[in-house]
Amino acid sequence: MTYCTTRGAGALAALPHHDGSEIYVQQGPYQLGSVITVRVRVPRGYGETAVLLRFVQDAEPRTVRTALARDDEHDRWYEAELPLHNPVTSYRFALVLPDDVHWLNARGVHDRGVTDENDFRITTAAPAPEWLHHSVVYQVFPDRFARSAAADDRPTPEWAEPAAWDDEPVAHGARTGKQLYGGDLDGVVEHLDHIADLGVTTVYLTPIFPGRSAHRYDASTFDEVDPLLGGDEALVRLSDALHARGMRIMGDITTNHTGEGHEWFHRARTDESCAERDFYYWIDGGPGYASWLGHSSLPKLNFASPELGPRLIDGPGSVIGKWLQAPWSLDGWRVDVANMTGRYADNDHNEDVGRRLRATLAAVNPDAALISEHFHDARGDLSGETWHGNMNYTAFSNPVWTWLAAPGNGIRYMGVEGLAMPRRTGAQMVAEMRDFDAAVPWQVLLNQWNMLGSHDTPRIRTVVGSREMQEVAAGLLFTYLGVPAMFAGDELGLTGTTGEHARVPMPWDRPERRDEVIHERYRTLARLRAEHRALREGSLRWVLTEDDAVGYVRETADEALLVVVARAAWPGAELRLAVPSGMAETLYGTADLTVTEHDGATGVVVPGDGPTVGVWKLR
Amino acid sequence: MTYCTTRGAGALAALPHHDGSEIYVQQGPYQLGSVITVRVRVPRGYGETAVLLRFVQDAEPRTVRTALARDDEHDRWYEAELPLHNPVTSYRFALVLPDDVHWLNARGVHDRGVTDENDFRITTAAPAPEWLHHSVVYQVFPDRFARSAAADDRPTPEWAEPAAWDDEPVAHGARTGKQLYGGDLDGVVEHLDHIADLGVTTVYLTPIFPGRSAHRYDASTFDEVDPLLGGDEALVRLSDALHARGMRIMGDITTNHTGEGHEWFHRARTDESCAERDFYYWIDGGPGYASWLGHSSLPKLNFASPELGPRLIDGPGSVIGKWLQAPWSLDGWRVDVANMTGRYADNDHNEDVGRRLRATLAAVNPDAALISEHFHDARGDLSGETWHGNMNYTAFSNPVWTWLAAPGNGIRYMGVEGLAMPRRTGAQMVAEMRDFDAAVPWQVLLNQWNMLGSHDTPRIRTVVGSREMQEVAAGLLFTYLGVPAMFAGDELGLTGTTGEHARVPMPWDRPERRDEVIHERYRTLARLRAEHRALREGSLRWVLTEDDAVGYVRETADEALLVVVARAAWPGAELRLAVPSGMAETLYGTADLTVTEHDGATGVVVPGDGPTVGVWKLR
Repeated sequence: MTYCTTRGAGALAALPHHDGSEIYVQQGPYQLGSVITVRVRVPRGYGETAVLLRFVQDAEPRTVRTALARDDEHDRWYEAELPLHNPVTSYRFALVLPDDVHWLNARGVHDRGVTDENDFRITTAAPAPEWLHHSVVYQVFPDRFARSAAADDRPTPEWAEPAAWDDEPVAHGARTGKQLYGGDLDGVVEHLDHIADLGVTTVYLTPIFPGRSAHRYDASTFDEVDPLLGGDEALVRLSDALHARGMRIMGDITTNHTGEGHEWFHRARTDESCAERDFYYWIDGGPGYASWLGHSSLPKLNFASPELGPRLIDGPGSVIGKWLQAPWSLDGWRVDVANMTGRYADNDHNEDVGRRLRATLAAVNPDAALISEHFHDARGDLSGETWHGNMNYTAFSNPVWTWLAAPGNGIRYMGVEGLAMPRRTGAQMVAEMRDFDAAVPWQVLLNQWNMLGSHDTPRIRTVVGSREMQEVAAGLLFTYLGVPAMFAGDELGLTGTTGEHARVPMPWDRPERRDEVIHERYRTLARLRAEHRALREGSLRWVLTEDDAVGYVRETADEALLVVVARAAWPGAELRLAVPSGMAETLYGTADLTVTEHDGATGVVVPGDGPTVGVWKLR
Repeated sequence: MTYCTTRGAGALAALPHHDGSEIYVQQGPYQLGSVITVRVRVPRGYGETAVLLRFVQDAEPRTVRTALARDDEHDRWYEAELPLHNPVTSYRFALVLPDDVHWLNARGVHDRGVTDENDFRITTAAPAPEWLHHSVVYQVFPDRFARSAAADDRPTPEWAEPAAWDDEPVAHGARTGKQLYGGDLDGVVEHLDHIADLGVTTVYLTPIFPGRSAHRYDASTFDEVDPLLGGDEALVRLSDALHARGMRIMGDITTNHTGEGHEWFHRARTDESCAERDFYYWIDGGPGYASWLGHSSLPKLNFASPELGPRLIDGPGSVIGKWLQAPWSLDGWRVDVANMTGRYADNDHNEDVGRRLRATLAAVNPDAALISEHFHDARGDLSGETWHGNMNYTAFSNPVWTWLAAPGNGIRYMGVEGLAMPRRTGAQMVAEMRDFDAAVPWQVLLNQWNMLGSHDTPRIRTVVGSREMQEVAAGLLFTYLGVPAMFAGDELGLTGTTGEHARVPMPWDRPERRDEVIHERYRTLARLRAEHRALREGSLRWVLTEDDAVGYVRETADEALLVVVARAAWPGAELRLAVPSGMAETLYGTADLTVTEHDGATGVVVPGDGPTVGVWKLR
């Protein structure tokens, strides 16, 4: 018997592989003009007669030969020197066969000529703060997380419709933003044990500036924390409490727009000669100004204005700069609608704004993080020069949802009424993940915020329909490449059919609405991630993409972990993988691996159980 | 019997289709802010319950429903309004099925989520001159095309090694650029009958400025035509003679570099205070300046210099502007190494230079064309705002070569010694063509210069090895989307194993070295293209991608032509295609189509002959 190497369940493990991790690439920070060593793994039996490295300089490719650097019973490792001549260097490998040339790029192996689109990429951009990719992020929507006693004394603002903590949020329509539950920042302080116990290291707060909605993405000022949340002092208390535990706190800013009620917009509308006048786009039609998706409540900001920069994004005196400093000491920003920021018709200030945001972070708090919200194809914005990472709907949430979608989950797919969420295969999920990941430099992939949901999406429990399937989803979340970012309440199995419906208050005193089993699974998976560096910065090599099961190896110089998740029972597979000790330790899940040997090389038999999450230590 | 619609030879014709041609898209010029109608064709039996249009505005997608506009026995046509909000609008279609959503983009149909990479694109850039996409281009390398009698009287320059007209050019090494055969511009004038008779409409001359090589890409000045070619007056004679025949003439300019012997570089090197000093990059190491691929003979230009623009590219007084005006009256420029132009380490002036070149054309000669040389993945440079089209090695030459490569053709693949050119299938060729075409706006695809070879590549006859296979290649050249651009001598079946070896003098007086059969085929194919607008601006729909045969339909409002080329005998196929009259006229080739009918819809039986080129008029 031999391993199946050309097709079927074991085929991927027999393909050449490379990524930006330490086992393949000399690690950064990378300097413009330096030369680094890169390596590629070619499994034995592939049949290559030579391996070439092709890299692009000033838009012109060069091709050099690699040298065989290491050779064992499983793989041959070739290496070459790669000059980092441009801010982003794109490269791939040519696998020379007796009668053909295959290409290995970040999308896999190809038997014909391919574009540079999916080349591997290395950026010389300043690296992200080291803590970011070691994080487990917990998203808090302040109105719905917890009320402190002080909340009872606050008056209800005119725009709001008060809701009781146990009320179910409205799922659609104008009322969604008006339901005010009265959560506040001291409420978060009171529940830090819950958060810390879960393994969270970073709390990300959706907006805390005053607005005319429960979500507060329609700020009326960026100069103070909403008194309904406890004001500036409450933010200091929360920030101090988190930092005292060694945790981080991140804010949320709308650089794309303000609220219609914003003090800048008020001045701009009432005084055509004021500095704020050109903060906005004044156009014919509609309400007379450009706005987010045509919503007049959210007038769009115009970065052609020379005064907007110093006020909002540039330097320590700007909004961005101010809150990163003591006493608030935010550890970074999540930027709302980062994709549209600075983009309007034939204006495109987006990259410029992103670079200026980074410059402000560097000047004010060099250890701060900058995460974009780009719900769609963000690849062109992820050179590493602007955002450290992105909220990763495209390469993570969307494909995972469609793999695990429960039939009849009632979710409007793509926001289209009557359109049901399709259910697709593991191979389709992985292809979609790889498509969206491929063009992104490793340094950014490490910091992508992977999510199973957010305040803008249905809850993962509703998407997948059961505790068992949520565990499968969580298995991917905590073991995949990037930063796990949970929406508060997911760990308790909360439900919701839309983003608005998902903004359900935390059931602190409702044990019957808390799924403590999935809660324990989340805790265990977060702990596993904390204990294994390979899950935080190891190579990611797909080795299995079946309809009902997918698997990858996460690998550093020190260890190699195999992760297999299955949505249902499947046939199982034997994978040609190195297990030097002859024993694979089970780190998560109930099934053990059988280690086999053929032709002097080891393999593992992965059992076909499902739904399951399995993590094994191969070395 | 029914047509095979899900796989096999006929499957492609059963897939939804769209491109930027008149049958699908309201034609331009397109204005920023306007709204146009777009249509999509969905073959009957596909099973869609709805079709949505998804388009991107300011990096945010919107989705709208289309309406059924037309319905016949073959297809359903859906349409929707598309706003052109940004300079380039990207869009695709969602095909809603009972339990899934498929995407149709410029790469085809997909059964999972895809990136925006291969979206259809429409540009509001100023359109290319109308004549460009109706052209047949003929590339002349002046030293090797023809000698006028005056050539005998010219002294041999110091750098040159005189060659006799019948000498075989050297294929490799330093001598390649030194062999001077003495062709001149009056030699071209004397052979315009040959050129016109071939169906050529545009003559493109490789550089005509003086240099220290036979190729003249190392200009010593841009201010005069090389006296070895007859000087400025000879260019006027050639330009006048071409224009008198209603033909066009295009020049070749190195915006990336000059020769080391250039007057600017001489001044820059000898006087550090002169204006030309900052035309170049002065760096540590090597010869002390940046140069093309490290060749010290070709110092690289630095567009950060404020004075370089007015001298070389900006306005009527620049080099670019001067030669577009009377009495020289060039009809455009091919820009050498356009990909590297303005790009060096962390400098990237490339798009800026391209836009300034276009501005100069618009100011000096709005009917002039601008074509880039980008040998590699040019997709990111083809928004239409800079180059009108590119020398299309990636989406045409490379894939065609590997489909038709003769085993043992002796060509160094990718320039690597010992690496043979692989031979791939029709499906691989088409996949590669579609990959490189997909992201490019239709307005640019129309103007891409498709080539079977150039002065920088082996001759097509050597690549494919026989007259029969060259005819197959030429069949693609003259019927594919874009502008056929021949290298002079291809029409006579000349050979060459490298770009340098391919620069073989025209065998005007050597009938034994002229293949008059392939010559006649080229003439016939050029005439076919001239007679059928569908071949110049019709939709391109792939309907057949077999190992040994590929086929597409070119279609306008007036007519639909089926093109099938085969490199060998193949099984033949029945394709579900509309033939309204019930009769398909054979326009090229010897085989007739049989028209069939099943389920009320017509089809055609394509015979499995090969090697062949067939073109049939379906309506």
